[in-house]
Amino acid sequence: MASQTQNIQLNDDGSLRHFLTIEGLNKNILTQILDTAESFAVLPGRPIKKVPALRGRIITNLFFENSTRTRTTFELAAKRLSADVLNFNISTSATSKGETLLDTLRNLEAMHSEMFVVRHNASGAAHFIAEHAAPGISVINAGDGRHAHPTQAMLDMFTIRKHKGDFTPLRVAIVGDILHSRVARSQILALNTLGVTEVRVVGPRTLIPTDARALGVHVYHDLEEGLRDVDVVIMLRLQKERMDGALLPSEEEYFQLYGLTNDRLACAKPDAIVMHPGPINRGVEIDSEVADGPRSVILEQVSYGIGVRMAIMSMCMQKHPSAGDES
Amino acid sequence: MASQTQNIQLNDDGSLRHFLTIEGLNKNILTQILDTAESFAVLPGRPIKKVPALRGRIITNLFFENSTRTRTTFELAAKRLSADVLNFNISTSATSKGETLLDTLRNLEAMHSEMFVVRHNASGAAHFIAEHAAPGISVINAGDGRHAHPTQAMLDMFTIRKHKGDFTPLRVAIVGDILHSRVARSQILALNTLGVTEVRVVGPRTLIPTDARALGVHVYHDLEEGLRDVDVVIMLRLQKERMDGALLPSEEEYFQLYGLTNDRLACAKPDAIVMHPGPINRGVEIDSEVADGPRSVILEQVSYGIGVRMAIMSMCMQKHPSAGDES
Amino acid sequence: MASQTQNIQLNDDGSLRHFLTIEGLNKNILTQILDTAESFAVLPGRPIKKVPALRGRIITNLFFENSTRTRTTFELAAKRLSADVLNFNISTSATSKGETLLDTLRNLEAMHSEMFVVRHNASGAAHFIAEHAAPGISVINAGDGRHAHPTQAMLDMFTIRKHKGDFTPLRVAIVGDILHSRVARSQILALNTLGVTEVRVVGPRTLIPTDARALGVHVYHDLEEGLRDVDVVIMLRLQKERMDGALLPSEEEYFQLYGLTNDRLACAKPDAIVMHPGPINRGVEIDSEVADGPRSVILEQVSYGIGVRMAIMSMCMQKHPSAGDES
Repeated sequence: MASQTQNIQLNDDGSLRHFLTIEGLNKNILTQILDTAESFAVLPGRPIKKVPALRGRIITNLFFENSTRTRTTFELAAKRLSADVLNFNISTSATSKGETLLDTLRNLEAMHSEMFVVRHNASGAAHFIAEHAAPGISVINAGDGRHAHPTQAMLDMFTIRKHKGDFTPLRVAIVGDILHSRVARSQILALNTLGVTEVRVVGPRTLIPTDARALGVHVYHDLEEGLRDVDVVIMLRLQKERMDGALLPSEEEYFQLYGLTNDRLACAKPDAIVMHPGPINRGVEIDSEVADGPRSVILEQVSYGIGVRMAIMSMCMQKHPSAGDES
Repeated sequence: MASQTQNIQLNDDGSLRHFLTIEGLNKNILTQILDTAESFAVLPGRPIKKVPALRGRIITNLFFENSTRTRTTFELAAKRLSADVLNFNISTSATSKGETLLDTLRNLEAMHSEMFVVRHNASGAAHFIAEHAAPGISVINAGDGRHAHPTQAMLDMFTIRKHKGDFTPLRVAIVGDILHSRVARSQILALNTLGVTEVRVVGPRTLIPTDARALGVHVYHDLEEGLRDVDVVIMLRLQKERMDGALLPSEEEYFQLYGLTNDRLACAKPDAIVMHPGPINRGVEIDSEVADGPRSVILEQVSYGIGVRMAIMSMCMQKHPSAGDES
Repeated sequence: MASQTQNIQLNDDGSLRHFLTIEGLNKNILTQILDTAESFAVLPGRPIKKVPALRGRIITNLFFENSTRTRTTFELAAKRLSADVLNFNISTSATSKGETLLDTLRNLEAMHSEMFVVRHNASGAAHFIAEHAAPGISVINAGDGRHAHPTQAMLDMFTIRKHKGDFTPLRVAIVGDILHSRVARSQILALNTLGVTEVRVVGPRTLIPTDARALGVHVYHDLEEGLRDVDVVIMLRLQKERMDGALLPSEEEYFQLYGLTNDRLACAKPDAIVMHPGPINRGVEIDSEVADGPRSVILEQVSYGIGVRMAIMSMCMQKHPSAGDES
């Protein structure tokens, strides 16, 4: 799978064609993404510049799973690159008339769409589409099942680099529902590829995969131990629907054990930053004092996310033939 | 409240930052809006020019209450100013995942949105958002509960000025459900600020606020008396849901008493104009002969509405730092 | 009706104003559309160029019937021409507040929309809107009831000309549910106007109009006979809801009798092309081997569709006054 993944994501010359998973991408290409993002990404409160890089190109948001926030960030990134964006709500499309997914894909390709941003609740959906995409088409994974959310991981890496400079000496703790988190899976791969000293995952036994150590992480079930001396704390969103099953006690009990408070954050290094992919559950996985506190970089992540996605989208489309734009 | 309102809407130098209500704005600034709109607003049937004023800026329509027409006019105004527009349907957004309104707002700000156009069924919603907006963010009230609809009032003022020139000698009658109308409230404030001779409100006792006189209006319960010698007749839309309660008799009976017919319009001045914020209920508050007649300026209001909103949006964003657009 | 149709679609100088039906348009104007489309239409896999022809103009998609695919192709065509596009979902609009269709139309005109692309499940809806449109407004029929789908017919003609050059010697078979098909009706008119040798319709007696011969076609109930020596085979989509009534046997039985397989395609000329308006029902009206085979031009139809719609939209708007774009 890893080698197949590697092949499908890269052009023959090693440049990026699709962006489906961190798996199979090396440190060089991840660093190139971060470097490219430097020219686009700006802090909250600063206007983000519009560039003509993809003027006249057509990008389709193919969202099988509703996510206004993620769709909006990709739409904004595409518009900042001057592309035209189609939002394709798959439930109201021809697939509801019995058309197969591949026929829908072929039709959108025939409409001259050159990039598909795919969100799906099934793991592997973006890969499937990339495998069947026509030459000259790029696919970006905007989250597939429990598998991967690689653009989120890259904006997290960008935010970490902005604050910490070098990845090498860092210890990073990822806290929460690791088992169901595509974000955590992509973050772990990216952090290890970029060469951090240690990645820790912290959470209750029921929410840590049994094979977690195989991912190259240290497992902690005690939050304070897990936070000891880390440089970066990444809190995951608790999916409240997990509460219904037997996996979790109540929200209150979860907060007692794994909610990030200022007291607990004191276990981490004094200059540790606190991250979260959003949307946050105040008082469940994170206390408002921390979320709104001086060490939180949660809103920076959102701001940088536009620029990082611009970098990934423009890199993937660099090999496409020019659109011959005359406008 | 008035002084607080004044403060929040204006920058330190007295220029417009937010546009939330007519309250606290003086004649100078209202006149400045009307003057600025002169360069944008055109009659129906004329193409409206596109200007680069807000090229590269991001404007978010934050509609908690569905209103295709109002959203469309703001979207068009933003696009005529060359801005990028996000339409944020709040019911399908992260708020449905339990995120607070303020967290949604912070996230949209972090996505570099510089203006929020807010529609909400609760009075004060746009104020609330403006009070909590980051520096450099502008908020436009596109209608909040029964409180205010100030852009509608300004396009009405623009239409009146186009036809009558000077506000000073005018008598204006506003007819219908004054009690529940945010439009009427904003119109009364604007007309009085611009210095008309007299504002009248006309309607059944159940639909006139008991403290109406405090708003600086004369109250009439007889339509023909209320129309006597006025220069401008503004008919309000009758919300049909009022019929269900005890507030109103049947539509037919309402039309008998308060529907505007040509016969009744004869009570007004011979050159009186007839206005309506739309959408009209033919045969309920207005007869088709009047709505489609030579004294109706209802469609002009719609046309001018785009240009007036362009004026307000560009004035509010004038103090924002440049987006460094390179496209 | 024909002369009225002719009048309403054309300006006094014979140029195109609306595009509602093929009826009443002569060979010259259809050929002019195809020639204009040559500069826009490109094959799948080629980027389609963006031109400034309609920069600053406002085009409204007025869809009373949901059709993501058709709406998307019109939206793309409009954006390739640099127009601003409004998507007006009529069920959520003011009509649901009791506003009449004509009042909605007047309001959209007043918002400076210069073109309406209309999709409606009632035959004649686009005509009705065109008849009531203000001067300077163009209407495009994007499918009305069982009546017409003229832009689909023109992209089919474009695809045929690309492959066959001259229409004169061609024999064309249209296969399937002719009775309910607005596509077939427009194709028959276009093919006959462009002067093909023979148009055949092929299908079960229940799905061929009783007056089919009056349309200038030959009627076949046997598929192999109907395909004998034709140059072009157009398969129609089988509306599965027809199965519910008494009109059709099962899908399997339909495929046995009227499904296009490679064996049956062998009855046509060796270089015959296979077309379908999409979305296709694999294994119902067409076998996958044919749909994906070398003689299928189904995806070319989709690609050319953008360019052909660009041609029609720009021709209709050529007489409009300039928008005085300053962006």
